[in-house]
Amino acid sequence: MDQPDPPPFFRAHVFVCCNRRPDGHKRGSCAARGSEALRDYMKARAKELGLKGVRVNQAGCLDRCEFGPTLVIYPEGVWYQVRTREEVDEVLEAHLVKGGRVPRLMLTETHVA
Amino acid sequence: MDQPDPPPFFRAHVFVCCNRRPDGHKRGSCAARGSEALRDYMKARAKELGLKGVRVNQAGCLDRCEFGPTLVIYPEGVWYQVRTREEVDEVLEAHLVKGGRVPRLMLTETHVA
Repeated sequence: MDQPDPPPFFRAHVFVCCNRRPDGHKRGSCAARGSEALRDYMKARAKELGLKGVRVNQAGCLDRCEFGPTLVIYPEGVWYQVRTREEVDEVLEAHLVKGGRVPRLMLTETHVA
Repeated sequence: MDQPDPPPFFRAHVFVCCNRRPDGHKRGSCAARGSEALRDYMKARAKELGLKGVRVNQAGCLDRCEFGPTLVIYPEGVWYQVRTREEVDEVLEAHLVKGGRVPRLMLTETHVA
């Protein structure tokens, strides 16, 4: 019988798309929409909140550019569009602190380019 | 009652650590161990294999530098150390094509710095 997978290394692993395309590209890009500063803010706030087992990383193109800035939280695989620091705070508080969701900011299967 | 989460956007979402620290840093870094070329190779091979619903992304520091080059596959949250193209091929074939594991290359809870 196969061994079970090791326990999760992070309770919540957040990937913020920081891909940048040239100005004027038809799909745009998350970095062109300000994702790098939002990633920095999210990392700093997660640290200030003392969230254990939570890691916030930048990532290459997550391929949902049209709805950026985008992030995805694993293992649950929940995607958000966050455009402001206030929206980052909402995701931190509702999802990462309380384990809930922010439905208003979530990407769904209807968000396809 | 809460809505269920949307269906997964990717069947398997691979993040390859491409963080680079200065030469001589005591933890080293995945990029200094060759992760960028391995990421490029994995992306290209995944495409050649026609793997549907699989995305290979670069990521910032995944914080398991000592065991790099590292990658993690979500939603299952399984981590691997891959040092060569042949090891990337093993992960592609066993894990991403067949849905199994490559225990020899997996990081476990004993892999802590």
